[in-house]
Amino acid sequence: MNYGIVRRVLGSLLVVEAILFLPGLLIGLYYGETSWQSMGLSVLITLAAGGLLLLSSRNISTNVRPKDGLMIVALGWVLVSAFGSLPFMLSGFIPRFVDAFFETVSGFTTTGATILYDVEVLDRGIQFWRIFTHWIGGMGILVFSLALLPALGIGSFQIFKAESPGPVAGKIAPRMKNTARILYVSYFSLTIAQILLLKLGGMTWYEATVHSFSTMGTGGFGMYNDSVASFNDFVQMTLGVFMILAGFNFSWYFLIFRGKAKDVAKSQELRLYLKVIAAATVIVMIDLLLRYGLNEARAFRDAFVQVASIMTTTGISNHDFTAWPYFSQMILLILMFIGGCAGSTAGGMKVIRILVSGKLVRREFSKIAHPRAYSPIKVDGRILPNEVVAGITSFLGLHLMVFLFGVLVISLENYDLMTSISAVAATLNNIGPGLSLLGPKFNYAFFSDFSKLFLSLIMLLGRLELYTIIALIAPKRWMDQS
Amino acid sequence: MNYGIVRRVLGSLLVVEAILFLPGLLIGLYYGETSWQSMGLSVLITLAAGGLLLLSSRNISTNVRPKDGLMIVALGWVLVSAFGSLPFMLSGFIPRFVDAFFETVSGFTTTGATILYDVEVLDRGIQFWRIFTHWIGGMGILVFSLALLPALGIGSFQIFKAESPGPVAGKIAPRMKNTARILYVSYFSLTIAQILLLKLGGMTWYEATVHSFSTMGTGGFGMYNDSVASFNDFVQMTLGVFMILAGFNFSWYFLIFRGKAKDVAKSQELRLYLKVIAAATVIVMIDLLLRYGLNEARAFRDAFVQVASIMTTTGISNHDFTAWPYFSQMILLILMFIGGCAGSTAGGMKVIRILVSGKLVRREFSKIAHPRAYSPIKVDGRILPNEVVAGITSFLGLHLMVFLFGVLVISLENYDLMTSISAVAATLNNIGPGLSLLGPKFNYAFFSDFSKLFLSLIMLLGRLELYTIIALIAPKRWMDQS
Repeated sequence: MNYGIVRRVLGSLLVVEAILFLPGLLIGLYYGETSWQSMGLSVLITLAAGGLLLLSSRNISTNVRPKDGLMIVALGWVLVSAFGSLPFMLSGFIPRFVDAFFETVSGFTTTGATILYDVEVLDRGIQFWRIFTHWIGGMGILVFSLALLPALGIGSFQIFKAESPGPVAGKIAPRMKNTARILYVSYFSLTIAQILLLKLGGMTWYEATVHSFSTMGTGGFGMYNDSVASFNDFVQMTLGVFMILAGFNFSWYFLIFRGKAKDVAKSQELRLYLKVIAAATVIVMIDLLLRYGLNEARAFRDAFVQVASIMTTTGISNHDFTAWPYFSQMILLILMFIGGCAGSTAGGMKVIRILVSGKLVRREFSKIAHPRAYSPIKVDGRILPNEVVAGITSFLGLHLMVFLFGVLVISLENYDLMTSISAVAATLNNIGPGLSLLGPKFNYAFFSDFSKLFLSLIMLLGRLELYTIIALIAPKRWMDQS
Repeated sequence: MNYGIVRRVLGSLLVVEAILFLPGLLIGLYYGETSWQSMGLSVLITLAAGGLLLLSSRNISTNVRPKDGLMIVALGWVLVSAFGSLPFMLSGFIPRFVDAFFETVSGFTTTGATILYDVEVLDRGIQFWRIFTHWIGGMGILVFSLALLPALGIGSFQIFKAESPGPVAGKIAPRMKNTARILYVSYFSLTIAQILLLKLGGMTWYEATVHSFSTMGTGGFGMYNDSVASFNDFVQMTLGVFMILAGFNFSWYFLIFRGKAKDVAKSQELRLYLKVIAAATVIVMIDLLLRYGLNEARAFRDAFVQVASIMTTTGISNHDFTAWPYFSQMILLILMFIGGCAGSTAGGMKVIRILVSGKLVRREFSKIAHPRAYSPIKVDGRILPNEVVAGITSFLGLHLMVFLFGVLVISLENYDLMTSISAVAATLNNIGPGLSLLGPKFNYAFFSDFSKLFLSLIMLLGRLELYTIIALIAPKRWMDQS
């Protein structure tokens, strides 16, 4: 392990975080809130910690191996979350560390699970920081999954190379920095477009900005206790559309800018993603029409916004969907696990993996008709190597194992099983609200400190696609066997 | 499709079924119950139907292809269940066809889900037939999975060849009839041994017989409304041990008789199976000790019997486990999906498949440490071909897809989600009782006719390991693609 480089990168991350505190600080000053002081103190503490780490890593080897990279990513996420919880604690809005840490991990992992009963009492500056973490986290995961992992050449993650349509991600920009720059541009452009549309729809600039940050990161934190329920139809539909755009594979935007929109339109992942959203919207809409007494317009809007919100693992809500018929709730529970496209800011298993496993099942049936036929798994006309397919099925298996293990641990709290199941489903897949006691009207405050820390770990496992963290904590002996 | 051979086999099956009605008929006569007449009438009707089918298939081609075999199996199970429900309807104990069909499918698939509020009011003859279906179904599935499928050479099912330790099933007995004979001997011997032990433990001969039938088939129907709760510890422990023995791969008994017990003891599937049972028993026992106020002896017995019952997908109970802490309930819910060993009378995903997917996940981690190492998946020291591994992961994926689809359908009834989830989990995995509204104290009577028929289909899908039935109902075009 190259500890020098680990310290250097972590130090840089903290310095960047200190800078990212500044907008919240300025907003606090602008509105004359006393909490600007806690934001300021957070800047100083984080800058100091980052500076110390940087000073301790001046003469180091620049030789980075995959395991160093994984360590940096996992530790980085934890450290940034720990320092990111300073404003909440110092301002007194979330005085206890465990709560503040949970809230911040939930922010950076773009989960959106909260321990707050009332989000409207927060000062504007603190509120801004809380939601800003989604946007930062969304950017972070894009760089991680589309630039850093391919650059590290980690086997299991080759899926991101394999699935992008036409030219593979590796070719798009040979070096990490270029890829990252392309991502920044797409992410910024979409955010700005959404802010303008939301303003046009009647939101204030502040509302438009924080809601764009929240949805582009597929996070889900909001300013109001009823999430987005009180906004008009135009605003809600805009949020729905941009959540879906945030669930796209961001390498597609690059292709679109390059005039290769046709290739993107042919992408099997994109088509399945849109088909699932369309089908779920229609089915839930019919259920809400027939059994929940909504009129057509309202049923469509609620179904569309809620399906988009859950499928993209955002988690904003325009209605307490735990009051819906159980059939629609079950649809949402399934969507939680599917998630967005690979290389997006969304969580979940990812559409591409569902696509590949569907093809695997289908191939078994075709074997009954043609026992001796050789049929490789293809995505977008290209054959997936066997090891990539094995990596995908292993990932799905691991995801389910972690899910079940998580539910077991949380069920020790002895709340009803749907609460435990949806607590883990909503954190592992980075959604936020769940079912039963964890619906949009409720929060995670009632869990014990142990469970809050455990669910924070689950959010990180989900966000970093599991392998990163488990690879670090698994005993070496276990990893060396097969 | 060779319809001649399909008619002939189905005709033979019905004739056999008519003969299998006879014990119940004799018991009815012996106890002077009026329901002997409905048993007798069932014999006549079934015999007549079987005879007609046989007569209509005298000059036929004996050329059987895999698809004919699958058709025979699926239709056979449905037809035998339909005629098997005659005694219930004719005697008036279960007057409606949908209910009687559900109960009979539940019997033959060794599920043990009931629609009866009170099983103690049944006449002895009818009661005997009800439980006898488990034993017949258990035998049927052994022949199906260990003799018929390998003989048909169906790709996806080659797992049964691949997993048996040492000599593969195909070598044990080159021809189907021999294999079937070996299975009969093991099955009969174990049943008789259990009857003797249960009699020794204080049961009457009748009680000992029906409970042995119920547990050897890993079914779960009982004579009493409290299942086996009122029997003494010795009887309950005996039932627990024999359920575990019924969950063994039956080719192991053949190896044991041949003096190759050492090979069996080394089997990784056997070891994982026993480890999971041991671990779950200890964990549930601790939970019951600490949070449910049982003493050590009672906690051990209840945990052991219930874990053995659920893991082997039997479903007998000595306690209403829906009153247990949710942690223990969650353990049971997970065990439902694991199930017994391949080639046993148990349902579920099967231990061997869990073993292989665990190895797949592990291999992904070892790739992080050794990116270029080639590491095939091995079971009992032998390499599994890639297509077998792919078949296993596809099966698990399909099992989960069918499960989720089933829950969606059942959730239309709008009972709480744990009821819908456990209804499908308990029928797809052929267990019987579930959680929430479907605990040991309750039954499936409250579901609509549609749901009862749908759950009957789910039981059949689970029993026939899904591929059989789906291969028959899937559109041909879909199966020809990959």
